[in-house]
Amino acid sequence: MAIKIRKLDSSDAGFKTALAAVLKFEESENEAIERSVAQILADVKLRGDSAVLEYTRRFDRLDVASAASLELPTTRLRAALDALDTSRRAALEAAVGRVRIYHDKQKIECGSHSWQYTERDGTVLGQKVTPLDRVGVYVPGGKASYPSSVLMNAIPARVAGVREIVMVVPMPDGVVNNLVLAAALLSGVDRVFRIGGAQAIGALAYGTNIIPAVDKISGPGNAYVSAAKKRVFGTVGIDMIAGPSEILVLCDGTTDPYWIAMDLFSQAEHDELAQPILLCPDAMFINRVETAMNRLILAMPRRDVIIHSLQNRGALIKVRDMDEACEIANDIAPEHLEVSANKPHKWAQYIRHAGAIFLGRHTSESLGDYCAGPNHVLPTSGTARFSSPLGVYDFLKRSSIIEVSHEGAQTLGKIAVELAHGEGLQAHAFSAEYRMKTRN
Amino acid sequence: MAIKIRKLDSSDAGFKTALAAVLKFEESENEAIERSVAQILADVKLRGDSAVLEYTRRFDRLDVASAASLELPTTRLRAALDALDTSRRAALEAAVGRVRIYHDKQKIECGSHSWQYTERDGTVLGQKVTPLDRVGVYVPGGKASYPSSVLMNAIPARVAGVREIVMVVPMPDGVVNNLVLAAALLSGVDRVFRIGGAQAIGALAYGTNIIPAVDKISGPGNAYVSAAKKRVFGTVGIDMIAGPSEILVLCDGTTDPYWIAMDLFSQAEHDELAQPILLCPDAMFINRVETAMNRLILAMPRRDVIIHSLQNRGALIKVRDMDEACEIANDIAPEHLEVSANKPHKWAQYIRHAGAIFLGRHTSESLGDYCAGPNHVLPTSGTARFSSPLGVYDFLKRSSIIEVSHEGAQTLGKIAVELAHGEGLQAHAFSAEYRMKTRN
Repeated sequence: MAIKIRKLDSSDAGFKTALAAVLKFEESENEAIERSVAQILADVKLRGDSAVLEYTRRFDRLDVASAASLELPTTRLRAALDALDTSRRAALEAAVGRVRIYHDKQKIECGSHSWQYTERDGTVLGQKVTPLDRVGVYVPGGKASYPSSVLMNAIPARVAGVREIVMVVPMPDGVVNNLVLAAALLSGVDRVFRIGGAQAIGALAYGTNIIPAVDKISGPGNAYVSAAKKRVFGTVGIDMIAGPSEILVLCDGTTDPYWIAMDLFSQAEHDELAQPILLCPDAMFINRVETAMNRLILAMPRRDVIIHSLQNRGALIKVRDMDEACEIANDIAPEHLEVSANKPHKWAQYIRHAGAIFLGRHTSESLGDYCAGPNHVLPTSGTARFSSPLGVYDFLKRSSIIEVSHEGAQTLGKIAVELAHGEGLQAHAFSAEYRMKTRN
Repeated sequence: MAIKIRKLDSSDAGFKTALAAVLKFEESENEAIERSVAQILADVKLRGDSAVLEYTRRFDRLDVASAASLELPTTRLRAALDALDTSRRAALEAAVGRVRIYHDKQKIECGSHSWQYTERDGTVLGQKVTPLDRVGVYVPGGKASYPSSVLMNAIPARVAGVREIVMVVPMPDGVVNNLVLAAALLSGVDRVFRIGGAQAIGALAYGTNIIPAVDKISGPGNAYVSAAKKRVFGTVGIDMIAGPSEILVLCDGTTDPYWIAMDLFSQAEHDELAQPILLCPDAMFINRVETAMNRLILAMPRRDVIIHSLQNRGALIKVRDMDEACEIANDIAPEHLEVSANKPHKWAQYIRHAGAIFLGRHTSESLGDYCAGPNHVLPTSGTARFSSPLGVYDFLKRSSIIEVSHEGAQTLGKIAVELAHGEGLQAHAFSAEYRMKTRN
């Protein structure tokens, strides 16, 4: 049984159209989901805790006595951490440590400090940078419950200086993921509620008696959660609405084809819409990767998902040379970009658009997913053209500072009066003029 | 004829509810606008230039021979600049200079540099910061055509290093605003198209033969433009969807009440939904501001708009003391916050949430609108809790850099394998393990 993965050649006449067809992904709006989410949000806004309780009983089949018991005490998180076996706990702690170090550096480099400068006439201009007050982290429940998501969402918020981090995680049928709860404790989450779905998003956005309203919600979720996040955007901030995960591997043909095959698999195993693409100038090497995939696939526990993803969304693309590979990479602006080549820096300098760039053949994407340090929440579907990985900067915001001196008010007033009249806004002009007349 | 502006007292029992009612603003979704915009966008995506031409002829009554003639040549911008009278041109040039200086400083302070660090085992981590390739600036036509908007949107993009800035501005019935065209030239806009509405947003988002597709669209517009921006978000980035403009004045009662009255007017004159609010611990002073407003109103050319805004959306609020005023300011998270007091810094230190903070009584908001330097595109409707003024950072994006050394792959691999198995993602584990086995 050979995997039927699409093979393209950039020198073919129809290549651009064929590539566009591979990349095409349109989030279909589901009317039923939209209606249901709108109704749940309105209900949570109106009835608060009792609505949250009802939906949690209905959708998660969770028999909770009262809204207050939706919150998990810290002792429960501590118990989850203690329940982990030694090596898993050590790995989790190591990952937390590395992600924190990276985001600590990011905080220093990303402009998290307030700044100002004084002009000769005494006028002061600048920006005050402050963390958000309170952030909500959504963590999916059930089989897609990933402890690494907890780290990647909570740690940048903590590093930014957010006062309170509230995590929500549904526990359908009471199923608890100890690794997720342990990750929450280690990442510095302050409060955990075992709720999920649109009702959890509504509770975080509007607040209830028990669940505090937050200023921003981050974290992945299913179609209901995404629809709810879109709807509450404006009332609160949101991180992003992620599309399917993607990897683009640029390989010069010098890496072990089994490594490349497995890197494509590791993306494909996420879900059936995940998109693994290889760009390589060496047709023989592409064949060797294909052979490797066919040899490896049967041993993969998640082979059905992998095959589905590769056949429907994947591609092996023969390019003219590595320069062309870089051009195509910029057009695609992938979430994950592996530059698996002898001289990775030579090619990386041409890359303008990518969520994360993995350089050199020892840098498998999976190391970045878990523990290298940088965030694994990345822009998808070409949005790396205009957006960035989740980071400390997403949990900070800025206020402009303007303090005009008496002298400054005279010179600035003249400019403002002239332009205000040019725009027909006379009160603006008068307001500036008042400061020009007197020495109050 | 006295202005009937709402007066509240924070010590009244119903104060919180009354304040919430004043602040409440819900953007009503207009079904007809939504349908029309969806249809226009789909049509522009499908038919490109010919659709843009048709809509421009229909909606702007502009008789253009071909799509190519929608573009204004640089000579036309130069002619607009030359047509300005001397003092207006000088004011515009001064404003451009000051806005550029502020954003140059911001670029240095906001973390616009790429950075990386090397770990002991040779693993390199960091972030590459790059400007967006191409940005579209939307400028409204007709009476709401503001040259200051051109500066505030184009200059941060230019300073960020964006390669190409494309401006669109409708010219209904061929009406041209020379100040807007001159502002485009001085701000460094590369290309100008005389189109507007949803068709302009569609053209910028999808690209046509004549109009290049951009990566992000910024700038204000009417309900059609806002609806179109929301719909193309994801295909391109957008700046924000602004609500009505607001000012919150914190005054300790030591500023000339006429100045405060005029500051409230200058906000109110923007449009009938604009929100001017005064917080002051001195009831007598509040009465003096009210008297000043009634004395000044008749001389205001835009008095109808001002009265409408003050009566429907404004409030004069007596607070217990300035500390309470700061607390309320944080709850409101206003777009513009004036701290008009003897010791403005004393109070400013307690302010966590505001788009722009104007310190001291010489700093009228109008100076910030035009020429102080900081951006006048600011978060509205309480979104300053989680978002920032438009800035250089909005035209930059980041890519994570991960380069794991052979040695690093051994230690990181161990962690990743453990956590990948914990999440049931075996290909992730194998992909990391390959790098642990050999010395390729």
